[in-house]
Amino acid sequence: MSYTPINHKIIKALTKIVGDSNIFTDQEAIYKYSKDETEDLHYFPDIVLKPKNVKDIAAIMKFCNEHLIPVTPRGGGTGLSGGALPVFGGVVLALERLDKIIEIDERNLQATVEPGVITEEFMDAVADKGLLYPVDPSSKGSCFIGGNIAHGSGGPRVVKYGTIREYVLNLEVVLPNGDIIWTGANTLKYASGYNLTQLMIGSEGTLGIVTKIVLKLVPQPLHNILLMASFPTNEDACAAVSAIFRAGITPSALEFMERKGIEWVIEHDGINFEMNPKAKAFLMIEVDGANMEMLFADCETINQELEHFNCIEVLFADSSAQKEELWKIRRTMAVSVKSNSVYKEEDTVVPRAELPKLIEGIKEIGMLYGFDSVCYGHAGDGNLHINIIKGNMSDEDWKNKLKDGITEIFKLTVKLGGTISGEHGIGLVQKEYMKIKYSEINLNLMRGIKNVFDENNILNPGKIF
Amino acid sequence: MSYTPINHKIIKALTKIVGDSNIFTDQEAIYKYSKDETEDLHYFPDIVLKPKNVKDIAAIMKFCNEHLIPVTPRGGGTGLSGGALPVFGGVVLALERLDKIIEIDERNLQATVEPGVITEEFMDAVADKGLLYPVDPSSKGSCFIGGNIAHGSGGPRVVKYGTIREYVLNLEVVLPNGDIIWTGANTLKYASGYNLTQLMIGSEGTLGIVTKIVLKLVPQPLHNILLMASFPTNEDACAAVSAIFRAGITPSALEFMERKGIEWVIEHDGINFEMNPKAKAFLMIEVDGANMEMLFADCETINQELEHFNCIEVLFADSSAQKEELWKIRRTMAVSVKSNSVYKEEDTVVPRAELPKLIEGIKEIGMLYGFDSVCYGHAGDGNLHINIIKGNMSDEDWKNKLKDGITEIFKLTVKLGGTISGEHGIGLVQKEYMKIKYSEINLNLMRGIKNVFDENNILNPGKIF
Repeated sequence: MSYTPINHKIIKALTKIVGDSNIFTDQEAIYKYSKDETEDLHYFPDIVLKPKNVKDIAAIMKFCNEHLIPVTPRGGGTGLSGGALPVFGGVVLALERLDKIIEIDERNLQATVEPGVITEEFMDAVADKGLLYPVDPSSKGSCFIGGNIAHGSGGPRVVKYGTIREYVLNLEVVLPNGDIIWTGANTLKYASGYNLTQLMIGSEGTLGIVTKIVLKLVPQPLHNILLMASFPTNEDACAAVSAIFRAGITPSALEFMERKGIEWVIEHDGINFEMNPKAKAFLMIEVDGANMEMLFADCETINQELEHFNCIEVLFADSSAQKEELWKIRRTMAVSVKSNSVYKEEDTVVPRAELPKLIEGIKEIGMLYGFDSVCYGHAGDGNLHINIIKGNMSDEDWKNKLKDGITEIFKLTVKLGGTISGEHGIGLVQKEYMKIKYSEINLNLMRGIKNVFDENNILNPGKIF
Repeated sequence: MSYTPINHKIIKALTKIVGDSNIFTDQEAIYKYSKDETEDLHYFPDIVLKPKNVKDIAAIMKFCNEHLIPVTPRGGGTGLSGGALPVFGGVVLALERLDKIIEIDERNLQATVEPGVITEEFMDAVADKGLLYPVDPSSKGSCFIGGNIAHGSGGPRVVKYGTIREYVLNLEVVLPNGDIIWTGANTLKYASGYNLTQLMIGSEGTLGIVTKIVLKLVPQPLHNILLMASFPTNEDACAAVSAIFRAGITPSALEFMERKGIEWVIEHDGINFEMNPKAKAFLMIEVDGANMEMLFADCETINQELEHFNCIEVLFADSSAQKEELWKIRRTMAVSVKSNSVYKEEDTVVPRAELPKLIEGIKEIGMLYGFDSVCYGHAGDGNLHINIIKGNMSDEDWKNKLKDGITEIFKLTVKLGGTISGEHGIGLVQKEYMKIKYSEINLNLMRGIKNVFDENNILNPGKIF
């Protein structure tokens, strides 16, 4: 596929659509749009457009489709797989001006928002009405709900509340040719033909541009308890995870962290957190609900389970401030790790009870290929983020041996019934690993679907497959 | 598309695949496969095949694809939209011999089953291990899990636990050309390319034949309380529904029934149930959880809410037997209505708080077009089953005016933010109404996806669009 080089006429036509003040071509303005949070990659677009509404976007897509100009949609730029990088240049379509919460419908427990709404701002807005929108990735302070849909985002509360997949009811989408559709209905159930809503979720901006979103909301739980348990080994902590569920408890969060991750947070963020010298791994466990007594009973059950896995100690967060402090450790871990070393993050997910085998295998593979790693993640979902640390590895080994090591990790993940990404997506940097999990038959089905939506391959080309 | 007429050579080749005892061509044997539970429709296949495993199915599909023979997969035959009817003849692929529960994995709270497992048998098997599989359509005693996936099935517990969409983790699928894939991974989260698992769910057997299913399980709640509330009008009962959620309660079931439906159940099934003469509409409300006190508190909150909607009385089911009796009323309603009159069932779904407008509109449309209706359904999800009763309507009016009336009902449903089917699917009999909800753009996307999977249109042709 060869795309049309950007010229003066193209810029003029696009300016006419979005207006002078919403088109950018100078290096300084477009620098920000050449990267996301994926390691140190840069791909510069020729043009950044900041449309205001669905009409503008439809006009842009129609024009770019007719003129074979690649368009890469962009949300908050917090992606970890390079999904928003314009690898063929062309247009970056920044959705930051579509930032309205259109309606919070308390009668139906639904809300309608634009894709550029920041996740945390939306969570706060619905919390003000006693409601919960529980999809909160670590980047919730800056990521967009549109981007969350593109990646099928999760976050710590998935374990009880489900991913964004269970909260999106209906989507307004601009197709690559500029046509506008609603994918489904504003209903909790849906059996009316192929589920285009679900197909859009996790499609990483390759099938259409989401311009309005109808979301389900749930009642805000009244109470929660947060505790932090420490263990002598990673395997003990990971094995405790599935035992908690088998005891009949569904926590509202169940996070795993390696000691080194916490050490780096302490160092980087100056957070005060004392660790028992024997503690090598930690579980953050939250339960929520309407009744404190019930939650205390849950915690007792959890405590009993943890004892079977050599748990060293359990810290109860007494106050909101202490809870906030513990969550801060978990939420800032990615940034802290990043600030310490060149690294590469992988987002493995396996059936929950296979976590001990996964983490043991990761460390063995690291030994074999000469890299260290810091692991943490949503253990309740079997979702482990692996931060491979360059440390003292030579540049040559980092360049050549790393991929083989990652390949081994993914092979193990797949062998354990898992897959390559639980919530970060495939984007640009993971697509070479897709063949570890998927046959050409699967990939060809995906390519076929892509072609149905985008026969000129102009929308976010070069991603996933 | 013209299909190959069945001849002796074709029968011989298919016999070779499944064996003499698993191919049927005589009228008597195939009669059962000419119909499902959709009104009084009959379409006879030429051949019924009962393969035993994925290998046989792959061989059948490869052969039928090469020879352009239509194949209609069939589960328990309980469908209400004609999805399993072989409208072009050819082969019915009956999945009844793929009936194994392969594994219940208590460590991971997952199970692997074949598509021909009867829903209730699976529910009982996991309940024996203290686990819950909450997707229980009224037909649970005879429907297959494979069919439930084809239709994105729900049932009364969706309101708290979600539809089957939230329980299917991974699918083994035979594609129309005989290729075999797994659609995803055995994980609770998934962000690894287009979600083929979710695409298969609700695709009504038009994209592939599901041959193995990995399902999520949840802990069995320890207690539940069931109550039945009566109201002077349909609108009062429907308006109470969304008030319960707004009060912060998420019931594990919230069913609406019109008085006439209950009367017919009493008459048809000899069930003993006394109704206050003023009661015109009923809500069955179940709450479940780990703590009886909490559930009593929930019931008190519910009671307070119901009072605002002229609730006449609330009956608490005291014993398991009484609960069973109340559930029997709800579960046998479809059959009872059917036995009383020629009827046509529609499966509307709207945002929950729009139910009063929907039911009011249905009755007005009925008056205008001269038909009566009995409504009941999963009110907590906004999902209302409308049984349009022929009663004294002339055959001519039934034939000619009914469709206009149904069209009006669906127009209203769509206007209220809803859609044509919440859980019964589109199949054969609802496809003419799809254009009320969907533009040609949506339908063409669906047709395009169908073509990617099944370029010869041999798998369950004539359905959905």
